[in-house]
Formats: sequence, C-alpha cells, structure tokens
Amino acid sequence: MTWTIKSQSINPERLIVEESLFSLANGYLGVRGNFEEGYRETDPTIKGTYINAFYDITEIPYGEKLYGFPSSQQKIVNVIDAGQVNILLGTDEEPFNLFTGEVKAYERKLQLDKGYTERLIHWCSPKGKELKLYFRRFVSFEKKELFSIQIKIEPINFFGKVKIVSTVNGDVKNYVNENDPRVGSGHGKLLTTIESKMVGEYAVVVNQTTNSGLQTACITSYQYVEGTRTDQVRDQSVETTIEFFLDKPRTVEKRNIYVDTRRHGENLSEKGIDLQNQLKTVTFEELLSEQIDYVQKFWNHADIVIHGDDKVQEGIRFNLYHLLQSAGRDPLSNIAAKGLSGEGYEGHYFWDTEIYMLPVFIMTKPEIAKQLLLYRYSILDHARKRAKEMGHRKGALFPWRTIAGGECSSYFPAGTAQYHISADIAYGFVQYYLATKDEAFFRSYAAELLFETARLWLEVGHFTGGQFKIDAVTGPDEYTAIVNNNYYTNVMAKYNLKWAVKAFKKLEKDAPELLAELKEKIQLENDEPDMWQEAAKKMFLPYDEQLKINPQDDTFLQKAVWDFEHTPKDHYPLLLHYHPLTLYRYQVCKQADTVLAHFLLEDEVTEETMTNSYFYYEGITTHDSSLSSCIFSIMGAKIGDIEKAYQYFIETARLDLDNTHGNTKDGLHLANMGGTWLAIVFGFAGIRIKEDGLHFNPALPNKWEGYECSLQYCGRAIHLKVEKERIVIEISGNPLKVSVYSKTYQVSEQSSLIVPMTKKESGVRL
Amino acid sequence: MTWTIKSQSINPERLIVEESLFSLANGYLGVRGNFEEGYRETDPTIKGTYINAFYDITEIPYGEKLYGFPSSQQKIVNVIDAGQVNILLGTDEEPFNLFTGEVKAYERKLQLDKGYTERLIHWCSPKGKELKLYFRRFVSFEKKELFSIQIKIEPINFFGKVKIVSTVNGDVKNYVNENDPRVGSGHGKLLTTIESKMVGEYAVVVNQTTNSGLQTACITSYQYVEGTRTDQVRDQSVETTIEFFLDKPRTVEKRNIYVDTRRHGENLSEKGIDLQNQLKTVTFEELLSEQIDYVQKFWNHADIVIHGDDKVQEGIRFNLYHLLQSAGRDPLSNIAAKGLSGEGYEGHYFWDTEIYMLPVFIMTKPEIAKQLLLYRYSILDHARKRAKEMGHRKGALFPWRTIAGGECSSYFPAGTAQYHISADIAYGFVQYYLATKDEAFFRSYAAELLFETARLWLEVGHFTGGQFKIDAVTGPDEYTAIVNNNYYTNVMAKYNLKWAVKAFKKLEKDAPELLAELKEKIQLENDEPDMWQEAAKKMFLPYDEQLKINPQDDTFLQKAVWDFEHTPKDHYPLLLHYHPLTLYRYQVCKQADTVLAHFLLEDEVTEETMTNSYFYYEGITTHDSSLSSCIFSIMGAKIGDIEKAYQYFIETARLDLDNTHGNTKDGLHLANMGGTWLAIVFGFAGIRIKEDGLHFNPALPNKWEGYECSLQYCGRAIHLKVEKERIVIEISGNPLKVSVYSKTYQVSEQSSLIVPMTKKESGVRL
Repeated sequence: MTWTIKSQSINPERLIVEESLFSLANGYLGVRGNFEEGYRETDPTIKGTYINAFYDITEIPYGEKLYGFPSSQQKIVNVIDAGQVNILLGTDEEPFNLFTGEVKAYERKLQLDKGYTERLIHWCSPKGKELKLYFRRFVSFEKKELFSIQIKIEPINFFGKVKIVSTVNGDVKNYVNENDPRVGSGHGKLLTTIESKMVGEYAVVVNQTTNSGLQTACITSYQYVEGTRTDQVRDQSVETTIEFFLDKPRTVEKRNIYVDTRRHGENLSEKGIDLQNQLKTVTFEELLSEQIDYVQKFWNHADIVIHGDDKVQEGIRFNLYHLLQSAGRDPLSNIAAKGLSGEGYEGHYFWDTEIYMLPVFIMTKPEIAKQLLLYRYSILDHARKRAKEMGHRKGALFPWRTIAGGECSSYFPAGTAQYHISADIAYGFVQYYLATKDEAFFRSYAAELLFETARLWLEVGHFTGGQFKIDAVTGPDEYTAIVNNNYYTNVMAKYNLKWAVKAFKKLEKDAPELLAELKEKIQLENDEPDMWQEAAKKMFLPYDEQLKINPQDDTFLQKAVWDFEHTPKDHYPLLLHYHPLTLYRYQVCKQADTVLAHFLLEDEVTEETMTNSYFYYEGITTHDSSLSSCIFSIMGAKIGDIEKAYQYFIETARLDLDNTHGNTKDGLHLANMGGTWLAIVFGFAGIRIKEDGLHFNPALPNKWEGYECSLQYCGRAIHLKVEKERIVIEISGNPLKVSVYSKTYQVSEQSSLIVPMTKKESGVRL
Repeated sequence: MTWTIKSQSINPERLIVEESLFSLANGYLGVRGNFEEGYRETDPTIKGTYINAFYDITEIPYGEKLYGFPSSQQKIVNVIDAGQVNILLGTDEEPFNLFTGEVKAYERKLQLDKGYTERLIHWCSPKGKELKLYFRRFVSFEKKELFSIQIKIEPINFFGKVKIVSTVNGDVKNYVNENDPRVGSGHGKLLTTIESKMVGEYAVVVNQTTNSGLQTACITSYQYVEGTRTDQVRDQSVETTIEFFLDKPRTVEKRNIYVDTRRHGENLSEKGIDLQNQLKTVTFEELLSEQIDYVQKFWNHADIVIHGDDKVQEGIRFNLYHLLQSAGRDPLSNIAAKGLSGEGYEGHYFWDTEIYMLPVFIMTKPEIAKQLLLYRYSILDHARKRAKEMGHRKGALFPWRTIAGGECSSYFPAGTAQYHISADIAYGFVQYYLATKDEAFFRSYAAELLFETARLWLEVGHFTGGQFKIDAVTGPDEYTAIVNNNYYTNVMAKYNLKWAVKAFKKLEKDAPELLAELKEKIQLENDEPDMWQEAAKKMFLPYDEQLKINPQDDTFLQKAVWDFEHTPKDHYPLLLHYHPLTLYRYQVCKQADTVLAHFLLEDEVTEETMTNSYFYYEGITTHDSSLSSCIFSIMGAKIGDIEKAYQYFIETARLDLDNTHGNTKDGLHLANMGGTWLAIVFGFAGIRIKEDGLHFNPALPNKWEGYECSLQYCGRAIHLKVEKERIVIEISGNPLKVSVYSKTYQVSEQSSLIVPMTKKESGVRL
C-alpha cells in the first residue's frame, strides 16, 4: 500500500519528526501534525500553524554592521493555534492521552491519495475506561482558509460523561533554537491577540504581528449532534466545552477558518464569519470528498509509479504530495524552504524554488508554476531597489532569501553574494515558457524579468581581454565564497543574457507595441540588447586543460584538496564543525555547482568535460547540502552510470521519512523532495525540455521492474512507461513530435509510441 | 610655541573633539578632556574615564552564526567618573559654566613638555559675579593610579560664598552609537556600583562589570586650606561639598586614585586608601613636578624637531605625546586603536601596534616596546587555542582584535581572516631584537613566539607545483577580502618563517638547554624547522610580468578598476557608501598593503618593482584608512619623490588636531600618530633597522629648513640632524658602525659624523 504513510510510534523523539511528516497544508495554510490532546510537559514539540507569506519583521543583529547589510528581515509567524482539543472522561475527568493508560492499538496515517491524516486509537485509561478514538483532519485544497478536525469517540467499556475542551488560542510564539544556523534566529513572540470573542456560535480570535502590522484571525465552529456547549472568552483565547453522555459512537467536528489582512483586507472577523456561514450546510464528509477529488485529479496528471520498490514508491509519492501542499497559489507567496511544515530557514523563499521545485510543477501542474513565477514578478521592484543598494546603476538583483521581497540574508558571503539566484529565476521563466508555450505570459512577465536580470550581469561583470568576466560572487556551493568566474554563475548568466536577447527579438516581431511600452517603462536603451548579446557571446567559462574539467571558479583548482581521510565521520556536515574560512581554503564542496550547471545547461559542455567534471567533483563533494545528491543522481544517469545514479537517488528519496539529516523536526526539505522527482524524470527518464521540444533518454535501474511518469507538456498529458525491454509513450491532446534517444518520432493522440529500451552504456547519453 | 596645544573654542561641536585631543593618560588610566563643570544638556559629549585592558564581556549578535564565530567579545569600560566638579557662586548659588554669562577670556592648553592640561578662564556670571578660574589636571606617569584636578578661583569683583560640589560617580555607561561600524556596537550599561562609602576623609566608590566580574574602585581625597566640608553617600556615588568665603584666591585639589582587580587583586578600597595615604603629605605641585621630570626625560630621547614648519612641529609632538600616554606598561595591556582617549573600536588592540606604533617605542623608549611584546606573549595561549578552533593542528593565530586575548572580531572577512597579524607580531619581536640586541628577551619570549607563528603558516599554506601558497586570507587592505596569495601576507609569513629558523639555530648554538626545554614544552618535532626553511624558500610571491609589479593577490589584477571618475566626493570613505561585496569586486584599495610590504621588507623587492608598484597602487588607493597616507609618504621618500612624500605626510601629521577624518570625537587615531613618526624617521630620514646595523638615507623636503630626531638604538642615544647641505649624526654610548647612503662609517662616542646631504634623486634610494 504505497498511498499511505503509516506510523505506530509514540516515541517523543519520533513524534516531533512526525509533526513535520504528517503536517497538512494547501499552499496557503499549514498545520503541523501535533496531537490534538497534546503530549507530556517534558516531551519535545514544535506547535505550529502557518500562513504562507504571513510574516513579522524582526531586527537583524550584527556585531559589525557594514553598508548595505539589511537591518531587518521577514520571518514566518506561528499563528493562532486551533489544533488543541482535550477529551476528559467521566465525572472524574480522566484526560485522554497516549502516554498514560494502555494503548491497545494505535495507528496514524497520511492518506496521500485522499489529502487527509487520521489517527485510529484503541485505548484504556489508567482507571480502566476503554474506548476507541478516530481523529481525522485536513486542510482544504479547494477552500484555502479551511482546516477541519473530526473526532469520533466510540465506547468499548466506558459509557459516561465526556467533556471535550477545545481552544482557539492566540497566545502563540515561534520556536526558538539558538544553536543551529539552519533553523533561524530566535524571536519568539511575534503576535499579540487584539480580539477574542464569540460571534453567535463562532469563536473568534484576532492576532496582530508586532512590527509588520499584519493581522490574522481564526473563526471556529463546532458540529456535533447532541450535548451541551459552553464558551469561555479569555484575553487571548476562546475555550469551548462540549459535554455529552457517551452511550454510542459520537462525532464532533472542529472547523477552523483562517484569514489574514494580506489576502482578505480589513474586517477579518467578518470575512471569516462569512466563510463559515457559506459552509454551514456542508458536512465534513462532503468537504472531505471535495478534497479527495482534488488530490486524485492531481495524481492523474502527476503520479510516478515505481515497479518493484515499495520503499522508494512511498518516498516519491510522499515528496510529491508535500510539494503540492507547500506551493503558494497567489502572487504574494511561493514555496518556503520547509514549505508550511516548520519554521526552519524562517519561512524564506530561496533559489530552491526555481531549480528544484518549479520544474515539478511546470510538468505536473503548470498553473501552480505560473503562480510561483508571478510571485517573482511581483517582487521585481524590490529586486530593482536591491540592485541599486548594491551599487548597480540598473537591473534587478533578487534577494537570496525573502518573504515579501526584501533581502533577508544577514551573512552575505553565502547570501547576497549568490547573484546566481537572478539567473536561476530567469531560467525558471524560460523553462516554463518552453514547457507551456504560454506566449501571453512570456510577453507580459517573462520579457521584463529577462531584461532586468540581463542588465544585472552587464553591471556586475566586465569585458576584459576579449572576454566577459564576473567577479566577487558566490556560487550555489557555499563551501566556497566570493570568487571570480564561478562556472555555474557565468553559464547561467550567459543563458539569461541570451534569452533576454531572444525575448527582445521575439517581442520586436510579435508584439512591437508591447515592447515599446516596456522600453519606455524600464528606460531600455537601444544598445542594451546588443550588449547582452556581446556579453553572452564573450562569457568566460573557466576550463582546465589538464584535468579537462570546468573548474568551479578561477582559483578553485589551485587550492589544496580537503583532507577527507583525517576528517572524523562525526564532523559532517562540515559547516557545523569548521569555520567558513577553513572551508573556503580547500577544494571541498557542500554541493557541486559545476555538476548542477552541466545538468541545467548541457549544451554548453562536451561529453568529455561533463564526465570528467562529474568524477572530479564527486571526489570532493560532501553532500552536506540536501540539494546535492539528487543532482549527482541525475548526472550519474546522464553519464551512463545508472547504478551510481540509483545509489544517490535512494539517499534522497526518503530523506525526511527516515530523517536522515536529523533535522526534519524543523520542517521538511522541500527542495530535496523536488530533487527526487527531478532524479526520476530528468535523471532516469532523461527528459529534457528544449527549444526544439521534449527529449527522452530513459534508463532503468537494475533494482526496478519499471516505472511510469505522468506529465504535462504544452497542454498535453503525457504518460511514460519504462519497462525492462521497452519504452511506451502515450499522449492525450494534439499530436506531438518527441525525441527518444536522439531520434525524432511523431506521436498522435491516443496512440502509443513504443521504442526498445537502450541498455545503459558507459558513455554520456546525449 | 610648539610645545603647547591651545584652544579658545567653546563651540560644542569642537569641544567633543577636544575631549579626545585634550585627553590625559599614562598607559594605565585615561581621562577624556571633559569640562569639570559640564556642558549644556543638549551639547554633545562623550564622558569617559578608562583603564587600559579593563573590560566587560558582551554578547556578539549574529543574524546567522556559523561555526567558530566568537560568541562574545571584550569591550573597554567607561569607569567611575571622578571628573565632575560644579562651582556655585554666592548665596543664590549661580553655577559657573562657559555657556552662560560673559567669557572675558578663555584658553585651554595641553602642555606637551609638562604632561598636564590647564584652562585659564576669566568669566562674569549672568548676574555679574566676575572671577578668574584656573583648572589644571594630570594623569600621573609615575603613579599610574593617580588622576588629579586642581582648581584655583580668584575673585575679581565677586567676594562671597562659594560652594564646590564634587562627585565620584559610579552611575556611568558607555557611549552608544549604532550608526558607525568604526565606533563599535552599543552596549551602554556595563558597570554596577557595588559599594559607595566614606572611609575617613576618602570618598570610595566600587564598581563591578556585568559579565567579566572585574572590579574597579575610585578613592578620592580633597586638599584645600579653609572651608567646611560635607559628604553625602548615595547609592551609586559620593558627593562632597566644600564651602568657603572667596575673599582671596583659593585652591581646591581633587585627587583620585583608580585601582582595579586585574592589577591590584582583591580589597580594592583598602588598596586605594593605602595609595592615598602614601601621598598624604605630597603636594599637587610636587606631584606635578615629578610628572614634568618624566615627560622631559622622554623628550630628551625622543623629540623630533622640524625647522621651518610650526604646524607640522606641533602635529608631530602632539602625536608622539599621545603615543606615550596610550601605551600599556604591563603584560595585561597594549595600545588600543584609540588609546585611552575614546571608545572607538571598543578599546581593542589590533596589528596597528606592531606595524605603526611599536617601532616608535623601539627607537624612543624600548622598555615600553618590551612591555608591548610581553603582552603579546601573554596571550600566546589564546592564540594557540584560536588556531585550533580555526581547524589547525598546531601553531598560534593571534586574534584580529582583542583585549584579553580572545578573538573579538565578528565580521571575519575583515577580521579573523587577516592572518597576517601573526606575522606582524613576529616581525615586531624581530625588530625589537634587532634594535636592542636583547638576547635574554629573544631566548625567553621571541623564540617561542616565532616558532608558534611559523607553525601557523605551515598549517594554513600548502606546497603545490614547487611553491608554497597561502589561500583564503585577507591582507591589510580591507577593500579586498578572502583571497589567495596576498603579497603582503606571503612575504611577511616568509620573514616569519625565516626568523623562526634563525631563532632555532641561534638557540641551538647559544642556549641548547633552553631550546630543549622549549621543544618539550611546545612539542616541537625535529623536522619542523626544515619545513619552515622549505616553506620560506618556496614562498610564492605574486609578480606580474607585464606591469612589473607585485599584484596584491592572485586575482587582483584581473578585476575591473574602480570607477573613480564617477564616484561622488561625498561617497568617501567608500566603506560607508558601498556594500563590501561591491568593493571586493574592483581594484580599489583602502590602503595599499603591497606598498606597505615593500616598506617593511624592502630586501624582497627590486627597485623597479617597488617604483612601479608604488605608482600603480597610488592610482587605485583611496586612503580611506588612516593607516594609508603615512606609508605612501615613507615609500614616496624611498622612491625619491620627496615632495610627494611631503604631501602625504602633511595629510597625516595633523589628522586629529584638524579632525580631518571627522571622527576624532570617538578617540585619537593612534596608528596614524605612529605613522607620522614613521614617515619622518623611516621616510625622510630613510632609517632602517637591519641585521647588519642602522641605515640612514636622509632627504629633506623643500619646505623645511631641516629636522632633528632623537633616537635609541642598542643602548645608545642617537641624534640625527638633517640640514640643507649636511647630515650630522651624534651618538652617546659605545661607538657604532652606521651606514649613510649605503656607505659605512664608524662613529665614536661624543663625536659627530658629518656627511654631505645627497639631493633627492629620481630613482629609488636603496
């Protein structure tokens, strides 16, 4: 059964991890998998409810603050807690929880194909009250404000008074952990309750952030058949008590509506009450059935089936499901590094989106991909402003980490210095265009973004000795910082520049009036596209004649290689055990950005350089970044070493499920989740989206019987099936020309293209 | 009169600058030139009393804290304020101050040849009380704990009751300025008063730091002839009121003794009272006469006389005097970047000491130079520990900025990454040895320090392609950071390594038992000196064949040159207007460290490279650092361009007196002060201390009639007189061989060596 994630654990150390694993979200609202009835006082827990892009502003402290260091940052806020429901049994009010009495049976499930979690419990209290409990909860994909919990209680030997004590609690704070730089700085209390009240049968709590002045409200209703209800309004919370006599199975539903001023404007409680009213006659089962429909439609276009490997099948579906949960659906939001499952990296958006996650949506749910790009377009003005702050006359420099558009990174050598993010975003716009041919979007949004990012490269780089060079930037590999001519940055900038020129020519031809308008708007000079062309043409891409590889940067190969032999195992990840300067001094990679560049832009590199580089960097890469292994998997497949590709792949597929990085409690590793999908689709299946169409180069790891991918491409549904002996490609929609193993085929609707499987070779599969 | 610094200003903006200019100190205790009677409430002031190396510990905040970033730092503390004395006139108690009534005459003087400051005032109160006041104060060079203030009041038309209200105030805090990275972070309140009391006639206040647990006490006595005295003990202060009838000139002395637990151990108030008791029968005039003796002895061995340029004469004596005031006299202390004149750079010690100030003491007051080096030796264990934290197996890495030995720099690219400080300190030990031939010191301290710093270079560098290279460090020029093979660092490391080998061989020969002991102590392997030798021999020193210069580092010349033409004048200093990353991207120097290296180690470079480099770097150096111009002056003289040397020199000679950098209020620029002395002695006079003796290559700027330098060298007093046509060298002590214009002369005691002046040439004067 690979559609369900199951657990029977009540080990506290595991439960805090499961809070992330069993988190529920819909791109707007996210709720961690906290037990409704709570834990013991000493048990570790991170209680969390998050609204995507709902942030407070906190000061960034510096020992020495230099010019252009951001003075404040945005930080995701743990909002009003509506998850708490206590169950008291009998007149002696014995509280239900799994850490007292006897757990006769317990199972928790995340239903990946249905979009909800459930807990099935058979429990006997310390004093012998035996009953069954059944919790279900979901965060609605169709009604983004809705988070609902249903609790069913069934008597076994206990028939008596039951008291349900449920709170909507505005007294919340963010999780504070000072010791791990990957979690974020400790600013606990970001919200103040400004209103708590009853409006009719609704419990209403309104909170406001300390510095950003944003508000959020939770409006809660209860559905139950019989019983008495009392509501107690407190300063920062509303507590509702429902009492009934348990003579037969009883069900209580707690239905919470979350609204916020960024999405719903003023008068939040009225807006929330409206939304509650609209659902008044709709049952939990009806809402859930809508949820199931949504999720199943998604899987129809996005599922990946692995034949012969249930563990991996579970991992890949789990990952894909969480991606669906995490992606923002409006221009205010994007995908946080931890989605809506935790507070790691303070809810910030990084380059992870464009390079690791956007491709998943481009090829499974392009309407979400479009929203993610619209978000970037919406912060273009911030990026223009930041470029100016960084001393550039024009262009757009996207923030390394942000929520609302301002730069939030305080350690610039591994933050602001990562100029490549602007090229990554440009790359994302181009990839979306190539996979959708959404011309309207290209004209209205992509062109402007491509122009502004291209301008940045002209500002940051310079022509010298017939070449265009880019100095003092940091590539994606954060174990090396502030270097000249980082291969990744330069090659991505080149692509950015080339596409800016293409966009200019395209608009000149297809939409001259739009272009004129745009030129006016951004004060584009006539000679700028020529300069972009020239810079792209002359872009310096470092190459080492002796090793026949692309060096990571101008001086990378001159450094000593890290002494891996004498590095104790427990000193990984290195960043937690060595000063950055020590790391910068050696040839050692957290992730190999040159290998990544070879994946993203394979036409810029020869087979030989690609293969040599792969092996060279493999020898010095620690994979301390969760973004690393998937790329080595993809490129392992590319250079024809499928079994190596498989080894890398299985290290990533269950990273969170098995908590292999040890920090899943702080939230899921969303980019890695995208990476596992990439490793199958771009790695094993060898798919590439290029200007001349869709390319397939499938291979099959020995351990698998076969695999299948459902994909979207240019308005068509594509189904790829890879078996031991053959490949089957099916297309719904208009006929399509595809390339398989570099041969072109025309596939017509409803027909199948069957191509014999090419066994893995030792060379590069180009 | 070039022995007196005078001012008649009561402009508040100037007065805050004069608080630094007229500050008094003795290497232990420092007091800013605050008016005893205070200012108006809205006037800017930085009240300050400092004890060298008396510090509190404050947390260093980080937005993102990475491994090895120091979590706390030491910070100099503004200690108990004993400077406040209010004077109330008449029964209506009209307060004296210079901002009301009529100032009929006012002059303030710093007596450079006598070691005190005074204020001569003729003033009439708003209600017409006319009188003369005469304030004198000094911080004793002979009794380090003593700070005394004498106030003489002389009636003109006012004869009546005078009330002197004087406080010893423990309620003090540090100055907070968040906006300038050069000042330091804002931690105001570092001290708590733990005791305030009267012991006999002494007012006693004891304060304790918040985190370092250090204590300091001030014990104050008053000397006056007639009058009634009352003392009021408050929680954090003691207020003493002395009333008398002003019928004739009256004098009151406030005599303050400062002690601290780092110097005086426990029972501070008893220690302070003891010291007061010892002085009971000594008068202010007697103490002052002792002070004058000390200062005049200093000038006898250290004065520099400029004939024909009073402004410069004033500057150079002012600077030298403040150096004398600022240098620590015990192994706990050194010279803070701002001496004891302000809180800029938080009272930290930098490389400034060894490169800009130590040479002054080596050649004028070698006993202070020795103390400064003993301080470095005393923190050697901290440096060993820091090397380990930075991932090195052995060796000593000195902190970039510190008080008690721990690394206090929070921005490591321009802090910890400046590994050169360890070589700079080693260089200082060697220079001291060469100028004093203090063999005992060399064996007991220098050898160990040279060994441990040499080890560092073996750890941080690596052999590659027959060369020894040093990656990922920052040179003194902070407009470029984290580079490979910074010329300055490499050449200084080479010298460090060579001298470690020399020290090893010397001890092997002269003191084999001491060497055996030392080898045991620091676990020195037999092959280490060979490795040092090898690394020194193979040290890579970047050289550019085309420009025939030493590039600042491996990639410096590949960067674009900063666009000086389009940089607005008000955008200097650049660091206050551009993000560091922007600065790192260009060829632009805050100070030219290659030119500095050519000065310090001229034997490593040819005339041609030296001259070419000078002009190349001159074109791209902003002199945004106050450490820059003096080096360009020295090297201007070196390459034979005396008038250019003079231009640079006059920019530095009066930097603080004229407040040309605009931040003298935060304290004096001690390194620049040393730099002006260097510019004369090493620049115009062309003196070098080498293994084969003392070298002179004097030149004379056109504007001057001549100049004279009094110097110490190997136990001898040397007097150099440079005139238009000739050079006169006189020596007291044993005969000495000296080199003048590369010719060797034997100078016997009490005789004069007269050499004709060689006119400036266009080439390098080697």
